[in-house]
Amino acid sequence: MKKNFDLLTMGEILLRLSPSNNERIDRGDIFYKQVGGAELNVASGVSLLGLRTGILSKLPENSLGRYVKNRIRFCGVSDDYLTYDNDDDKRLGIYYYENGAYPRKPNVVYDRSHTSIHKLDLADYLPEMYASTRIFHTTGIMLALGSQARSTTIEAIKRFKEQGTLISFDVNFRGNLWTGEEAKETIEEILPLVDIFFCSEDTARLTFKKEGDLAKMMKEFALEYNISVVASTQRIVHSPKVHDFGSVIYDSKKDIYYEEEPYQNIDVVDRIGSGDAYISGVLYGLLATDMDCKVAMQFGNATGAVKNTIPGDLPSSTLEEIERIIREHQSTGPKLEMDR
Amino acid sequence: MKKNFDLLTMGEILLRLSPSNNERIDRGDIFYKQVGGAELNVASGVSLLGLRTGILSKLPENSLGRYVKNRIRFCGVSDDYLTYDNDDDKRLGIYYYENGAYPRKPNVVYDRSHTSIHKLDLADYLPEMYASTRIFHTTGIMLALGSQARSTTIEAIKRFKEQGTLISFDVNFRGNLWTGEEAKETIEEILPLVDIFFCSEDTARLTFKKEGDLAKMMKEFALEYNISVVASTQRIVHSPKVHDFGSVIYDSKKDIYYEEEPYQNIDVVDRIGSGDAYISGVLYGLLATDMDCKVAMQFGNATGAVKNTIPGDLPSSTLEEIERIIREHQSTGPKLEMDR
Amino acid sequence: MKKNFDLLTMGEILLRLSPSNNERIDRGDIFYKQVGGAELNVASGVSLLGLRTGILSKLPENSLGRYVKNRIRFCGVSDDYLTYDNDDDKRLGIYYYENGAYPRKPNVVYDRSHTSIHKLDLADYLPEMYASTRIFHTTGIMLALGSQARSTTIEAIKRFKEQGTLISFDVNFRGNLWTGEEAKETIEEILPLVDIFFCSEDTARLTFKKEGDLAKMMKEFALEYNISVVASTQRIVHSPKVHDFGSVIYDSKKDIYYEEEPYQNIDVVDRIGSGDAYISGVLYGLLATDMDCKVAMQFGNATGAVKNTIPGDLPSSTLEEIERIIREHQSTGPKLEMDR
Amino acid sequence: MKKNFDLLTMGEILLRLSPSNNERIDRGDIFYKQVGGAELNVASGVSLLGLRTGILSKLPENSLGRYVKNRIRFCGVSDDYLTYDNDDDKRLGIYYYENGAYPRKPNVVYDRSHTSIHKLDLADYLPEMYASTRIFHTTGIMLALGSQARSTTIEAIKRFKEQGTLISFDVNFRGNLWTGEEAKETIEEILPLVDIFFCSEDTARLTFKKEGDLAKMMKEFALEYNISVVASTQRIVHSPKVHDFGSVIYDSKKDIYYEEEPYQNIDVVDRIGSGDAYISGVLYGLLATDMDCKVAMQFGNATGAVKNTIPGDLPSSTLEEIERIIREHQSTGPKLEMDR
Amino acid sequence: MKKNFDLLTMGEILLRLSPSNNERIDRGDIFYKQVGGAELNVASGVSLLGLRTGILSKLPENSLGRYVKNRIRFCGVSDDYLTYDNDDDKRLGIYYYENGAYPRKPNVVYDRSHTSIHKLDLADYLPEMYASTRIFHTTGIMLALGSQARSTTIEAIKRFKEQGTLISFDVNFRGNLWTGEEAKETIEEILPLVDIFFCSEDTARLTFKKEGDLAKMMKEFALEYNISVVASTQRIVHSPKVHDFGSVIYDSKKDIYYEEEPYQNIDVVDRIGSGDAYISGVLYGLLATDMDCKVAMQFGNATGAVKNTIPGDLPSSTLEEIERIIREHQSTGPKLEMDR
Amino acid sequence: MKKNFDLLTMGEILLRLSPSNNERIDRGDIFYKQVGGAELNVASGVSLLGLRTGILSKLPENSLGRYVKNRIRFCGVSDDYLTYDNDDDKRLGIYYYENGAYPRKPNVVYDRSHTSIHKLDLADYLPEMYASTRIFHTTGIMLALGSQARSTTIEAIKRFKEQGTLISFDVNFRGNLWTGEEAKETIEEILPLVDIFFCSEDTARLTFKKEGDLAKMMKEFALEYNISVVASTQRIVHSPKVHDFGSVIYDSKKDIYYEEEPYQNIDVVDRIGSGDAYISGVLYGLLATDMDCKVAMQFGNATGAVKNTIPGDLPSSTLEEIERIIREHQSTGPKLEMDR
Repeated sequence: MKKNFDLLTMGEILLRLSPSNNERIDRGDIFYKQVGGAELNVASGVSLLGLRTGILSKLPENSLGRYVKNRIRFCGVSDDYLTYDNDDDKRLGIYYYENGAYPRKPNVVYDRSHTSIHKLDLADYLPEMYASTRIFHTTGIMLALGSQARSTTIEAIKRFKEQGTLISFDVNFRGNLWTGEEAKETIEEILPLVDIFFCSEDTARLTFKKEGDLAKMMKEFALEYNISVVASTQRIVHSPKVHDFGSVIYDSKKDIYYEEEPYQNIDVVDRIGSGDAYISGVLYGLLATDMDCKVAMQFGNATGAVKNTIPGDLPSSTLEEIERIIREHQSTGPKLEMDR
Repeated sequence: MKKNFDLLTMGEILLRLSPSNNERIDRGDIFYKQVGGAELNVASGVSLLGLRTGILSKLPENSLGRYVKNRIRFCGVSDDYLTYDNDDDKRLGIYYYENGAYPRKPNVVYDRSHTSIHKLDLADYLPEMYASTRIFHTTGIMLALGSQARSTTIEAIKRFKEQGTLISFDVNFRGNLWTGEEAKETIEEILPLVDIFFCSEDTARLTFKKEGDLAKMMKEFALEYNISVVASTQRIVHSPKVHDFGSVIYDSKKDIYYEEEPYQNIDVVDRIGSGDAYISGVLYGLLATDMDCKVAMQFGNATGAVKNTIPGDLPSSTLEEIERIIREHQSTGPKLEMDR
Repeated sequence: MKKNFDLLTMGEILLRLSPSNNERIDRGDIFYKQVGGAELNVASGVSLLGLRTGILSKLPENSLGRYVKNRIRFCGVSDDYLTYDNDDDKRLGIYYYENGAYPRKPNVVYDRSHTSIHKLDLADYLPEMYASTRIFHTTGIMLALGSQARSTTIEAIKRFKEQGTLISFDVNFRGNLWTGEEAKETIEEILPLVDIFFCSEDTARLTFKKEGDLAKMMKEFALEYNISVVASTQRIVHSPKVHDFGSVIYDSKKDIYYEEEPYQNIDVVDRIGSGDAYISGVLYGLLATDMDCKVAMQFGNATGAVKNTIPGDLPSSTLEEIERIIREHQSTGPKLEMDR
Repeated sequence: MKKNFDLLTMGEILLRLSPSNNERIDRGDIFYKQVGGAELNVASGVSLLGLRTGILSKLPENSLGRYVKNRIRFCGVSDDYLTYDNDDDKRLGIYYYENGAYPRKPNVVYDRSHTSIHKLDLADYLPEMYASTRIFHTTGIMLALGSQARSTTIEAIKRFKEQGTLISFDVNFRGNLWTGEEAKETIEEILPLVDIFFCSEDTARLTFKKEGDLAKMMKEFALEYNISVVASTQRIVHSPKVHDFGSVIYDSKKDIYYEEEPYQNIDVVDRIGSGDAYISGVLYGLLATDMDCKVAMQFGNATGAVKNTIPGDLPSSTLEEIERIIREHQSTGPKLEMDR
Repeated sequence: MKKNFDLLTMGEILLRLSPSNNERIDRGDIFYKQVGGAELNVASGVSLLGLRTGILSKLPENSLGRYVKNRIRFCGVSDDYLTYDNDDDKRLGIYYYENGAYPRKPNVVYDRSHTSIHKLDLADYLPEMYASTRIFHTTGIMLALGSQARSTTIEAIKRFKEQGTLISFDVNFRGNLWTGEEAKETIEEILPLVDIFFCSEDTARLTFKKEGDLAKMMKEFALEYNISVVASTQRIVHSPKVHDFGSVIYDSKKDIYYEEEPYQNIDVVDRIGSGDAYISGVLYGLLATDMDCKVAMQFGNATGAVKNTIPGDLPSSTLEEIERIIREHQSTGPKLEMDR
Repeated sequence: MKKNFDLLTMGEILLRLSPSNNERIDRGDIFYKQVGGAELNVASGVSLLGLRTGILSKLPENSLGRYVKNRIRFCGVSDDYLTYDNDDDKRLGIYYYENGAYPRKPNVVYDRSHTSIHKLDLADYLPEMYASTRIFHTTGIMLALGSQARSTTIEAIKRFKEQGTLISFDVNFRGNLWTGEEAKETIEEILPLVDIFFCSEDTARLTFKKEGDLAKMMKEFALEYNISVVASTQRIVHSPKVHDFGSVIYDSKKDIYYEEEPYQNIDVVDRIGSGDAYISGVLYGLLATDMDCKVAMQFGNATGAVKNTIPGDLPSSTLEEIERIIREHQSTGPKLEMDR
């Protein structure tokens, strides 16, 4: 049966304000305004690659909410499942971001308390929605924001699961939102519902108290919670402006680990959202191939790597561009210097 | 006895974000970042004219708070009485502003709930402060923000008054912060402490339920609450880009009303803060002349009128500039086209 | 029967490049990039007011086409009926625009030959489309671009008409695209299919050789071609930065002319697209009220007037804003200076 | 005999630094960089209209001098007669300019002492130069800069005059460079050499101590010093953003005064250089018509009026644009709103 | 006999539009406007080094053509041999360029069909022109644009050759303009006229079907077509932001190959035009030394290397800067960190 | 006894104008405006770390002087000891700076002759000032500017020394201001007064004619002139965009040299002022610890290294940031990629 959407995500969408280039938050006359948020970034990445996506979120009903809605549409994501908050205390979350340059790190200041996302309410959605998508994706951030967002998120996961939707979940642990203990307890509650699981090696070890090497930990998750796909990115930070990026994906049905030579010495322009872009590549790969984890790994690595070169949270690569990058990455022959 | 400060004000300081020129909040890639706030605007205006001013406020202890502190210093106001909030939920209030162009009005979106100003605490200040200034100024906004800000403000007024400080108060009624009834009741409680009172004709009529012409209402305030100086601006809005600006000041000791030909067809660049700039001119005039209300009225009209031509909340006129504008305004002879 | 769309339009979409503020095309280092086009402007205006719209157009399949597609989505218009040109000689039309300032006029340089719109092909659309909208709107520009665009446009009008769709048509005469004679002959051929007709007084007189006053000419069109609604804007250009804007609408069924006091002394920021915005207001008014021409005239005047204050071709006003402007325009009492 | 140049001017070229829009010199993060100078402005204006012009000046031999040279070429003026200063203390003069907005005036800060122009030396030029142009133009600024610039300028005027070149001179009195007495004495010394003389009514009266109405004073200059053409602009400053502009030209051979309806309510974007643009129009008119003062007056008024709408010192109007403006100014019929 | 020009080139001049920094063509609000074109870039580079150059080209007679003309003058190139197209369908070619960042490549979108250059006509030039320059330079792009441009170019080469002018030719193969076969056939037709030949190793091999090592192929060209100088750049692309740059020049009269240590780890800011800058350095070296290929190679490498650090197509280095870079490149001692 | 200031410096403050990113001084439309100057940079760095600082300087009394004063306050430095020049020839020094990119070096053009700093006069300061600070710092630039600045500076050093103030002095040799001989002679005259001495290895060798290794030369200075602390930075310039930065400090009382692993592969954004930032870190370390040279070395290296990543002359790091960078630099464990 044809679904209306390939992917629906659920999450908070933030206004991002950044000074130009290497300027600092506490100086200068200008902020660049962008939108971002882990779940939007994923939906946008999948949409750019050619599939149909949407996002469940709640925005203030004012010019800022309108700005965000329009940007969401600009980046190819449907606004059908946005809801609006018209209370007096409605507000859009904000974060301020400045780039790093060694020995200065990138810096983030959050201003995301008391935002309209806390009022996201499943009562605003029709039951048909839960059957309208092939994958539903959300992240640990939604669980960490507060008790209402948490219970709404868990309920949504359950309803989508009930309708046969694949559940994709990214831990995305943020120490400034909750403790490792809270995260472990909450996420373990939903892991039995999860089909595609994204978790970094550090988080597996420090938050979930796993032990052993990465492969062992990934397999443990898969076995313990009956997860089909477990993916983990591997980033080496040479400096704020130079990273390596790769990943391992474990296909539990085939019991195979997929990995390739990482992208090395990436020219990092804006590192934010590259993990989300990775997820978008993986989900695209899975959706486009009937769950071929090798393709998913290749797309994930390419979308993640290239996102580092794009200003803002949101990815901006078409399918054609990603396929070309994958081909180049695999090729050993001479390469063209320029696309023209 | 020489005081350290000519003027201390108390109030919230906001980050202001505006699109460029005639662009709208819900479009475009850039926000101009500025700081503002009624009480800061007044302190800055008086400081630019050559007197020593400071502001009591509370800022989040992060890079945004630092930005605001530096801007405050940039505009000549002392940061001695700023306090800092280091709680997890610290935040700086924000407002978004777009210019108008007939038939489109200027537009403001506030995001000022749950901000650090609500934790402003007199316990952070030494008793000597209350005797260190000639005038203490605050506005109805501080009373409207919430119960803690209100009681702190009232207590501060009392303590300054006890030390013989002149109390200046601007009603600055904002219908989106409280009702007219709340405003009336609260302000009438502090009016007996007030020496210099700023109130618009509309507010006198609609909020304080005064009747009769402006002169009658002004005198009533003065008599009822033993106020020395009552000032009221008079603005005619021909379009968002063209205003007239003037005022009436009532000197209750002399029982004289001061008024002059208004500034007509002002080229309005940014109207925000022109009322505050007016107050800064009046307070400067009073401080510089031992309470000569005629001079105060002339300075107030000039500083208020010229602020309309300055981008941002904050005024930017030196004493020399204001004196030149006053001279030109009073002169009937030929005028130079340019200052060079 | 519920239609998917309230309005579909068909037209060319151009990249617009403009120097900043009052700078000239032949100087400076920067162009602002925007998109525009008469038919897109109309669709976007109706969409902003809350109805569902789309546009039939053809874009080059490259990053410029992608930019245009995303912008179209940003402004609320569906991209469902965009088609893409992947030929080697695909190209997007461009126009360069600089603002005027008396005695210098606004200036436009077109570079719109050989563009992909010429290959717009009805074979790319399913027959269902013709029944999917309440109104279909296009303009004389499509007829003027060349023989293929012309025949495609006429054929589209016929097919939509056959499915009971209301046909809206704006003459939008451009002397640099065709002669008055060509225009007259071609448009008279399609006028029998038109239900809602937009034509300026000058064009009626000079191109269609009508005579008499405006009311007489409007009625003649209605009678001769069985047109339900004939609308004509009335603009007085005091200077490139100050216009008056109003209109007359003739409802032929009721034989009534609707008119109101024009908006006077509009602060013109960017005049381009204000005629299209007017049409969007009129069509919204007709769609929202079951063809009440008085409401249509009020919405048209307000959307047209306020568009003059918005940079770029595209309108940017919500229903709430337009309704507020209409109320203010009709009110005689005191008006608030600012929306906050 | 065909000359290489229609016009050579001699003068200082300055770097101009301006904050954006209505921002002030003492705030903001950006200066717009431009070049200007009365004599360059005139040469550029004549060049834009299609004649061949150059400028005698001296620039520092560094990247700033290079910037100025390139800009001079950009605006159509020959760099053949630029000379370069390579001393250790070489420097380019600067001026800072901020726009006005009523009641705030435009403001200029000069930093033009000790600049390389003071070392301009006629020994750097070949004798042929003095016969290579139809008109030589300079201004009182060159006489006011200092004794060396003054004697160089006077000597240059003499040499050009000896070769039969028409001498054009603009008083351009600047009270911050010299006193009225110095100006009067110095200029009266060269007036017998002058053929085309530009002097404002105020300067005639206040500096040259003439009496009576403008016509009388103009004729006196012509008779006393055997001047062929005397021109005087007439500007009414309604506000920094709205001026009227017109002029009177006296043709002493025909004993006729030429005048027309002034350009009214000009949208002033940048008033600097509009007097120089006027001169460029007059000189163009004289050069293009064999000294027809009526045409000169029409071109002068149009070039002067339209320069007010152009950012920066330098004009930017082609012959086609000026002719269109003159036609519109004289026409009484309907006018097109836009050039396209 | 002294020639008026050291170098004339013939080619198309394009408007280049680029997003800022690492932004993409399909996003953002701004394009930087620049001009470029292989043959202009060469002429500008030679002019910056102090020789006299011009370009034969055809521009639309509108504000875009005017912008290009002024920019050409800004960069030191004569506009004497520009011709203008005033047909209705006149147009300026455009290309859009975005920077790369590994793993994302630089990207170019061309919009150069149907441009005015196709109408470049030798009938617009006087016969004297062909004898007025020491070198005439053009590239394979002119041959590839279309049949009229091709025959005009070939005819021009012949006429310049007949007057004893040295002919310089750069293959500059562009696969999007013609096939390798067409290129080979056409270029081989003109090679007998060529004195200075620029061809990359790849092109020699893939397009001209040469075999063996680079030295062998270069010598073959020289012998086969009696070419005096054959030059070939060698670029290693470590990433879009880091290149090495060097070259080999073969002096066929002396039968010597010149080569030096390449510039390594160049900080690439904008790679476009660095090959053209190389040619400008080589031609300057040949012109300044009576054909010393060693000097030509040193200048070529330095001008090519440093152009990579300059935004836009056009070089910007003075002779002094290039000589300093050459000295530093050859020096082994301590180097100053900064020029001041 | 508590002092009002921890540090006072004395020096010239310059307006700095820079093109954006990699653009050049001789091109482009914009300059970024900033302020800088060796002695201001030091005062600002110490102030940002939490101590109280001021600067003795002289500024023109105009809008540029006002801009500088406000910026000084913005960066945390007191304006109590600024004096103002109101002479006709008052002026602010300027320098133009463009970034480098290998093989192009950073470039500076100075325009600092005849500036108001030459009139700095100790008569404008009260005697109490000399006892009001723990350290007084100045540099060789003040000695090099001219005879009046030199004698004023020497006199100031003496007066501060007499009041028991520690004297800090940075040689900061500038070959474009004076010769090595002049520098040696003048500085040797004041060295007996100096307590903390900053001198690079090159300057020790080339200007002061010291011999042997760095340690030997540093100790010689200390013994010869009874200096407590001698510090010398060590910078390796891999390219204009990649430096290493470290230092050696010699504590003569303990006869110990302090050194640590340098910061390697710093992402250089703006190298100007990093030496001054180093001094600010050293002075902070000494002031905060009662002269612990190890802490001073660690702070100096961190503040110097991180300044390279900050646009403009002035540092921008808080104590918290510097302490975090020091911790990271010393740590060997895993590091967080981002501060959030």
